[in-house]
Amino acid sequence: MMQLPQSYDLLVCNGEIAAPEVLNILAERAESVVCADGGANAAAALEIVPRTVIGDFDSMTEETRRYCEQHGVEMLHLTRQDDTDFEKALLLLRQRGTKHLVITGVTGKLLDHTLGNFSILLRYIRDFSIVLFDENFRMDVLTEGGRFTSKAGDRISVVPLAPAHDVVYQGLRYPLKGETLEAGLREGTCNEATGDAFEISFSDGVLLLFRPI
Amino acid sequence: MMQLPQSYDLLVCNGEIAAPEVLNILAERAESVVCADGGANAAAALEIVPRTVIGDFDSMTEETRRYCEQHGVEMLHLTRQDDTDFEKALLLLRQRGTKHLVITGVTGKLLDHTLGNFSILLRYIRDFSIVLFDENFRMDVLTEGGRFTSKAGDRISVVPLAPAHDVVYQGLRYPLKGETLEAGLREGTCNEATGDAFEISFSDGVLLLFRPI
Repeated sequence: MMQLPQSYDLLVCNGEIAAPEVLNILAERAESVVCADGGANAAAALEIVPRTVIGDFDSMTEETRRYCEQHGVEMLHLTRQDDTDFEKALLLLRQRGTKHLVITGVTGKLLDHTLGNFSILLRYIRDFSIVLFDENFRMDVLTEGGRFTSKAGDRISVVPLAPAHDVVYQGLRYPLKGETLEAGLREGTCNEATGDAFEISFSDGVLLLFRPI
Repeated sequence: MMQLPQSYDLLVCNGEIAAPEVLNILAERAESVVCADGGANAAAALEIVPRTVIGDFDSMTEETRRYCEQHGVEMLHLTRQDDTDFEKALLLLRQRGTKHLVITGVTGKLLDHTLGNFSILLRYIRDFSIVLFDENFRMDVLTEGGRFTSKAGDRISVVPLAPAHDVVYQGLRYPLKGETLEAGLREGTCNEATGDAFEISFSDGVLLLFRPI
């Protein structure tokens, strides 16, 4: 099914979670599962046992709390006001030496959270490789180009999180040949894969690559 | 109820629409209502008669099309590939001389659309004053500071769409005193109004101000 990093940790936050069958696979293949506060509700509902739940615990249900206690889950109760539960989890994972990170629940629901979370993510893109999942998309956070598998007709979007220069697409219906992608200047939504792989290259910047799950 | 510009046009797009009672008020007070393609479905469902529907018409239902025909709505069928229905609508409104614009349905649903639409919005911030509505928030697109009414305890978020400098808050629980707000550097989510008004000032940049509806 999904191409994932060979070894990664899974972080489950409290936003729009990947579909249950996808979350199950992501958790099964993960080295460890960490939940940020209310993200634990989604894990518990699927009987996924996280290694750690971290946060100020204002979004976890009483039922989830009992589930975690029964399964001996490590509970890190941090009430620092100057970072969110999401950032607390990223700091923990960085400290533990995580290199490849798959995250779900960091987008969706309240739009201010979604936009704020992307801002937080940008502070950690040198520490981890990061792939996000919501109900609709797999989103790779790209700090350099790459080759990606696809099916002809796949809807592909590319959104700049930081301005990217010399962007070149190969294998997409609407090619780019060295343009700049930058918010307010040019976005790359609703492209389409033409075959079983495509390539993106660019210099500088950060691109968010949307693919079907 | 809501503080709105004295005179504005309402644009309804195909994403997450304001609650029906809010959309009704927005439409009643508007000088004109323009729908981008599938946004007309939301208008027709509430028996709001738009002046114009614009787009490639791939998202409008047959029922909505009949409704529009029965009510003599202007139908601008444009199939240009190089802009989205949202941008087609913005171009039309700019051409018609709109100065103040209220938009709903430009966020939510698919995240690549939401992020792409913010990128498009940034191209038009010198042409219109813009206020967005989704189900949860009223979002003012700020290119300069201002004073805003509130209730003590209102959840207020400020997200930089373009880096904003010398940001000063007064009347919010966590004040800023000249800091920079910039994606990846510092975001301003989940603040709180302390009284019946607050002030934001800044130089350069674009801020998205989230307030309860």
